[in-house]
Amino acid sequence: MEKANFSEWYNDVIERAELSDKRYPIKGMNVWRPYGLKVIQRIDDLIREEMERTGHDEARFPLLIPKTEFAKEGEHIKGFDSEVYWVTHGGLNKLDVPMLLRPTSETAMYPMFSLWIRSHTDLPLKIFQIVNVFRYETKMTKSFIRVREIHFFEAHTAHRDLEDAEAQIKEDLEILRRFATKLCIPYLVLKRPDWDKFAGAYYTLGIETLMPDGKTMQLGSIHQYQTNFSVPYEIKYEDEHGEHRYAHQTTYGMSERLLGAVIGVHGDEKGIVFPPAIAPYQIVIVPILVKDKQEMVMAEAKQLRDKLLGRGYRVHLDDRDMRPGAKYYDWELKGVPLRIELGPRDIADRKVVVVRRDTGKKAFVKRGVLWLHIQENLKGIERSLLKKAEERIFTGITEIGTIEEGKGKTGILKMHWCGAEECAREVEVGLEFTILGTPYAEQRDHGRCIHCRKKTDTVVFAAKTY
Amino acid sequence: MEKANFSEWYNDVIERAELSDKRYPIKGMNVWRPYGLKVIQRIDDLIREEMERTGHDEARFPLLIPKTEFAKEGEHIKGFDSEVYWVTHGGLNKLDVPMLLRPTSETAMYPMFSLWIRSHTDLPLKIFQIVNVFRYETKMTKSFIRVREIHFFEAHTAHRDLEDAEAQIKEDLEILRRFATKLCIPYLVLKRPDWDKFAGAYYTLGIETLMPDGKTMQLGSIHQYQTNFSVPYEIKYEDEHGEHRYAHQTTYGMSERLLGAVIGVHGDEKGIVFPPAIAPYQIVIVPILVKDKQEMVMAEAKQLRDKLLGRGYRVHLDDRDMRPGAKYYDWELKGVPLRIELGPRDIADRKVVVVRRDTGKKAFVKRGVLWLHIQENLKGIERSLLKKAEERIFTGITEIGTIEEGKGKTGILKMHWCGAEECAREVEVGLEFTILGTPYAEQRDHGRCIHCRKKTDTVVFAAKTY
Repeated sequence: MEKANFSEWYNDVIERAELSDKRYPIKGMNVWRPYGLKVIQRIDDLIREEMERTGHDEARFPLLIPKTEFAKEGEHIKGFDSEVYWVTHGGLNKLDVPMLLRPTSETAMYPMFSLWIRSHTDLPLKIFQIVNVFRYETKMTKSFIRVREIHFFEAHTAHRDLEDAEAQIKEDLEILRRFATKLCIPYLVLKRPDWDKFAGAYYTLGIETLMPDGKTMQLGSIHQYQTNFSVPYEIKYEDEHGEHRYAHQTTYGMSERLLGAVIGVHGDEKGIVFPPAIAPYQIVIVPILVKDKQEMVMAEAKQLRDKLLGRGYRVHLDDRDMRPGAKYYDWELKGVPLRIELGPRDIADRKVVVVRRDTGKKAFVKRGVLWLHIQENLKGIERSLLKKAEERIFTGITEIGTIEEGKGKTGILKMHWCGAEECAREVEVGLEFTILGTPYAEQRDHGRCIHCRKKTDTVVFAAKTY
Repeated sequence: MEKANFSEWYNDVIERAELSDKRYPIKGMNVWRPYGLKVIQRIDDLIREEMERTGHDEARFPLLIPKTEFAKEGEHIKGFDSEVYWVTHGGLNKLDVPMLLRPTSETAMYPMFSLWIRSHTDLPLKIFQIVNVFRYETKMTKSFIRVREIHFFEAHTAHRDLEDAEAQIKEDLEILRRFATKLCIPYLVLKRPDWDKFAGAYYTLGIETLMPDGKTMQLGSIHQYQTNFSVPYEIKYEDEHGEHRYAHQTTYGMSERLLGAVIGVHGDEKGIVFPPAIAPYQIVIVPILVKDKQEMVMAEAKQLRDKLLGRGYRVHLDDRDMRPGAKYYDWELKGVPLRIELGPRDIADRKVVVVRRDTGKKAFVKRGVLWLHIQENLKGIERSLLKKAEERIFTGITEIGTIEEGKGKTGILKMHWCGAEECAREVEVGLEFTILGTPYAEQRDHGRCIHCRKKTDTVVFAAKTY
């Protein structure tokens, strides 16, 4: 399967690598198979590390939200009520108040925040959870990218004022930078236009990456709420002077799309390439079992595995009764970063063969320098995956001066924009692209609006999107 | 709060120790607060260790089950349809096929098992998941013990024949033994009478412990299904001779009641006592900050914390601006197994004070033998918690010869029973106790049925239950 037809390639590797099974009898609700679950759990672990480092506490809120709580923030319910699942019956009884499956947890968490926050000493409150959320998708579903039951990370914070809440968003971006480096995923942070912000937000930052088919995919988002939720949910604190003030709030969310991006961005014609930080196995050992020497080779292979485990690597010894070539094929498909081949000749020569998944390069490595070689090559894979992906995303950005210039272009388009919704809509209609937003880290850059030709310092990005 | 009034004591410590918040606006759906979530995650980790050791793979199946799949096994749906939540609408549309929130996952998993299992080489299939399940409880709810959203572990296995499936149940009991030892929870494994087995099971083993109020609580269960599910779900394999056979299946489930049991069984008038294996912090360090020496003491305390962390312990240094006594009180409530007090005098004398949560015993320990002291005392706490709990459960069993004899008794009653439902019902009505079942590891023990006086070798247990 060539990667040229990205969509087919993507579905095919997910199925053959046994990450997810979409044959479950509800469309868009897929089964996490053991290998796929291991990857997303590694991603969760990385998130937990970052959350702990930045003083967030993990909690877990109920799945169901009563309609009465959901309805408290008017914009929020308007944005979501056509895409939530409703629970209307418990057993044989109709419920007095219908409940919905959380599409996100603002309206589950904030009634509790209102109870927990009393004084300025309770702030900042920084809570996160990793749970599944539910959206009644009507578009075509796609594993990890557009599903109806979504593995989801969401951090919710409450602060004494806007300044502290803005500092939180800076911290979120630092978390993103460290985290995305481990996933080797380049991204753009774009402030969504007002008409496309999250339901109830003051402003929304979208985190976008570029997929191989030239479409951008939103991996997550960061929202500044100001007091939009704290007012209806009565999240108030008493300050040092005895005055009651509304908390300022932010959220940060990312989903299993991260895994979809990793598969799409790094994969090749052989299959998946996992970054070492999230690979379920970082190293696979394939013993070359030659007649009469099987026991000796297996004993050496086990010893090597145990030594690598002892050094903290995730290692798998593939002792299946299959040809080595079939095993290579299988683990290449499944994206294991390093493969070690070990046969009787290698053992006699005190060396092993180490093959890099990303480049296919084979190295004959003396046992004495093996640890160093592994360490350097895992780091090397991380660096090189990120570098290649960065090159692709940055060469994927084309600057255009007129809508006409953009016609027939793929990837991400960058243009000057006056800020008027009307001009943005002209771009969207003219190019069949979506306006993604303006760079969060603002650069002053003089030019003229792509449509109305007014002078402006603002640039905006547009793309075909997932 | 005295433990004499167990129910009040239980609710009070859970609230004050900040394990769970039951003020969420849906009754019986509670919020896992950070400290409580840490404990259940440690319990999950122990389960994962056991599952990995015994060759089970972790997967994750969707929350929602279409009614059509749920209805395939007749007994199963009869047993559950009055206690499931129904999703009837997606967005503004009525769904063609209503879906339910899993109350357990047989009917979510088995359509997939039917696709995954083709040949005898695919067996045994051993899959588990840790997810939340949902039951529309109508009885009074109680944190961790009777809730509507339940943190749940469920293992599902498929085997070539009954013999292999029975061997799985033996393995499950071994897992239980190791696992319960770490939680310091004694238990009885009782085969439920036929009228009380799991909906769809061939037989059910209940795992019971005794709570301080004299009632037993079911912590989990193990089911032998034989082919009761594999026939309706068409889980078939081709054997070595090309014949198609139905798989034999078992399941093993345990819930957050494990945490309820730990709190109830080990707690005392000061609060919770966590076994070291699941304590979020195994050791808390309380620095005694005397004027002019604060910096020196904090520096020593940090060094000690880092050394303990380096040895793999879960340690917390409590540097809050509070009196030491208030900190002792707080961490006693929260059940931390060992407390280390460290003041300027201790530092000068090269010693620390170590206090055991279970006994309250104080030891002055020289720094040179501190590691050994900690290791031995954490083990000692585990042993002693289990021993005390075992004594309580075994002295809590009373053997009775007639129903009359049982009147006014509390705890667990043991009696001979002929096996007839009628006789069991007489006991249940006469004593207002529930028949729990017969010991799984059968002992031949001659006697006469408690009601009809027929000769029998079977004993049965009864108790008031949660």
